[in-house]
Amino acid sequence: MDPMLVVERQAQQTDSKILLLVMDGLGDTPNAQGQTPLSAAAKPNLDRLAREGSCGRFDPVGPGITPGSGPGHLALFGYDPTEYEIGRGVLSAVGIDFPLQPGDVAARFNFCTLDAQGNIVDRRAGRIPTEENRRLVAKLRQIKVEGVQLFVETESEHRGVLVLRGEGLSPMLADTDPQKTGVPPLPVRALVPEAEATAALVAQFVVQALQLLTGEPQASGLLLRGFDSLPQIPPLSQRFRLRPLCVATYPMYRGLARLVGMHVVEPPADLADIPRVLAKHLAGHDFVFVHVKYTDKAGEDGDFQRKRQVVEEVDRLLPELLACGFEVVVVTADHATPVALASHSWHPVPALLWAPGRAFVDDVQEFTEKACMGGALGRLPLRFLLAEALACAGKLAKFGA
Amino acid sequence: MDPMLVVERQAQQTDSKILLLVMDGLGDTPNAQGQTPLSAAAKPNLDRLAREGSCGRFDPVGPGITPGSGPGHLALFGYDPTEYEIGRGVLSAVGIDFPLQPGDVAARFNFCTLDAQGNIVDRRAGRIPTEENRRLVAKLRQIKVEGVQLFVETESEHRGVLVLRGEGLSPMLADTDPQKTGVPPLPVRALVPEAEATAALVAQFVVQALQLLTGEPQASGLLLRGFDSLPQIPPLSQRFRLRPLCVATYPMYRGLARLVGMHVVEPPADLADIPRVLAKHLAGHDFVFVHVKYTDKAGEDGDFQRKRQVVEEVDRLLPELLACGFEVVVVTADHATPVALASHSWHPVPALLWAPGRAFVDDVQEFTEKACMGGALGRLPLRFLLAEALACAGKLAKFGA
Repeated sequence: MDPMLVVERQAQQTDSKILLLVMDGLGDTPNAQGQTPLSAAAKPNLDRLAREGSCGRFDPVGPGITPGSGPGHLALFGYDPTEYEIGRGVLSAVGIDFPLQPGDVAARFNFCTLDAQGNIVDRRAGRIPTEENRRLVAKLRQIKVEGVQLFVETESEHRGVLVLRGEGLSPMLADTDPQKTGVPPLPVRALVPEAEATAALVAQFVVQALQLLTGEPQASGLLLRGFDSLPQIPPLSQRFRLRPLCVATYPMYRGLARLVGMHVVEPPADLADIPRVLAKHLAGHDFVFVHVKYTDKAGEDGDFQRKRQVVEEVDRLLPELLACGFEVVVVTADHATPVALASHSWHPVPALLWAPGRAFVDDVQEFTEKACMGGALGRLPLRFLLAEALACAGKLAKFGA
Repeated sequence: MDPMLVVERQAQQTDSKILLLVMDGLGDTPNAQGQTPLSAAAKPNLDRLAREGSCGRFDPVGPGITPGSGPGHLALFGYDPTEYEIGRGVLSAVGIDFPLQPGDVAARFNFCTLDAQGNIVDRRAGRIPTEENRRLVAKLRQIKVEGVQLFVETESEHRGVLVLRGEGLSPMLADTDPQKTGVPPLPVRALVPEAEATAALVAQFVVQALQLLTGEPQASGLLLRGFDSLPQIPPLSQRFRLRPLCVATYPMYRGLARLVGMHVVEPPADLADIPRVLAKHLAGHDFVFVHVKYTDKAGEDGDFQRKRQVVEEVDRLLPELLACGFEVVVVTADHATPVALASHSWHPVPALLWAPGRAFVDDVQEFTEKACMGGALGRLPLRFLLAEALACAGKLAKFGA
């Protein structure tokens, strides 16, 4: 049996509070000087937590597997990320607060630029401004397709969300985005026979959309991808008796938090605003997920110094966060985004677990990828990090007599 | 879900090449001076790879479990060795290039010496020469048993292979080898009712064989063991989209490689011949399994110095192997064969993973069992080592949105 099922069974509600601080894409690989953004950063508060607690490394999905944001966060929240798959369409829909219902089929779309022959010239329509997106979406909302209710929503820039609501829909549709230019969008295609009817409905939407977009200088076409329906994920309150709170700025992470039943509050304006938002909403919650996006962004840009600076900024926030009163603090990532690769990677993420009097105080003196190799937590699948945190918070009863 | 299923799903073909160099039985335990054959060896090339890459330790089957060569190699090739069992008979048959078919039942046999009372005097018939074996096998090929096609094959010295081909055969038969002298061979016995018919066929073969062998001075009898049928193992090309090549001298390892769909080429004449054979056949392949037997042999003989020397010889081959052009190099073992035990053992095997710009460069400075304890790979089940190698080779797409 997966030990996480035992964790579920032994979970008990207590007043103790856990802070899960996720620095997206935090893990990295050493550069020629043996340094990572994390090891190069001046971060006295994180180092103190590492010194006073346990450190280790965690595999979001498994050795060698590079996770998207969905699987990485599911693992952080104690779920087996191979058990629940969340398509891009669902992520986008919940990320813009769209009240997705079971059975709805959601897809992400990009506005794109087509030439006179209908071939794709720009897959992102010149990254049109979000306001322009809203004007176009208002047009597309005129589209009616018999037998299904349609929702067209702006996400940002060239990105939007299409939701179909009706009876007997199937999300098993292929992307229409060919992922290259110089060719036309792919036709809407069912991946299984049961999805033929849904494919026909989407095809009707696409035909009408193209008519409405004809003549637009940039957004003259539409590419759909990531068709999916809401997965049935048991909420954190049910699995671990937690009362979870999400403090996150970016829509996708807010959406992920909502999928596991977190109470998602207003987005902080910037990093410095996080402690205020957290303090405002903490009452009544015992598990707080704080998401920081900028480490990942810097990693994706291959920017060592900026990634280091973000770590330092987060470090400066820590005293204020801790002042809110947490018995347990976890700092880690959903996946590594090494500067050298400028993309997500498969490397295990570093983690620290601080819980005075509860966590094993190992000999790790600083919070770095290498120091974490010698830590008390070893190398484990990421979903077990929540189990360690729950134990330190006194939220897991003894198993067996 | 086993993360290796995700690895399967995310596998993609690329041109990058992986070298899996297996030094059979490489792992060892420290002697009174704290040294192992590996740590005592002068091996500048292996040490350099360790310094430039990641190290770790891997459990072929699981903690405490001593693997045979079959399970050890299945794990090296990314298979769960508890999922596929390969009997001795099948290993021997595929190891001599016998074209075993699904449904065939194969058994290993030993010629043995019987006394006048029919009791076993020597279970290996004085280790008769292989030529003598061939003469006796030619005799046994006269045997006809109604309802089944029989194949009798020489393996080497006193060892041979019996294969039955026909309808409705079952491999669920007990060994006839009592594993001791002074007693007669055991009768052929079915382990389940469905195998009664097959047992009767084999018994007829044994009776005729004894008649033909009567009067032979050494090989006057026959002991059968390891009845088994070909397991249905999905090939590496299907599971991981690899185009695998096997460079191995010993029949059993060539047979194991064939079982997972490797292209098995001519055996190198000796260690020094490996680079030539590899270079000759490398084109069109992206995963090369090189097997070195002699570390295991030295371990089985309890010969510390010889095991050390084999490591040194392999080390000297490395520059020539690397010159063939590999993006990823893995050096490890299928199991430990500690000199002190003179047999396979359960200890995790040391491993190094070299992949410039991709593998995490940890602080390990040399390739030894002890140094590997502090490496970036930690301690993992052996089948995950392939996942790490595939990731470093860029052969695994991101999982999830």
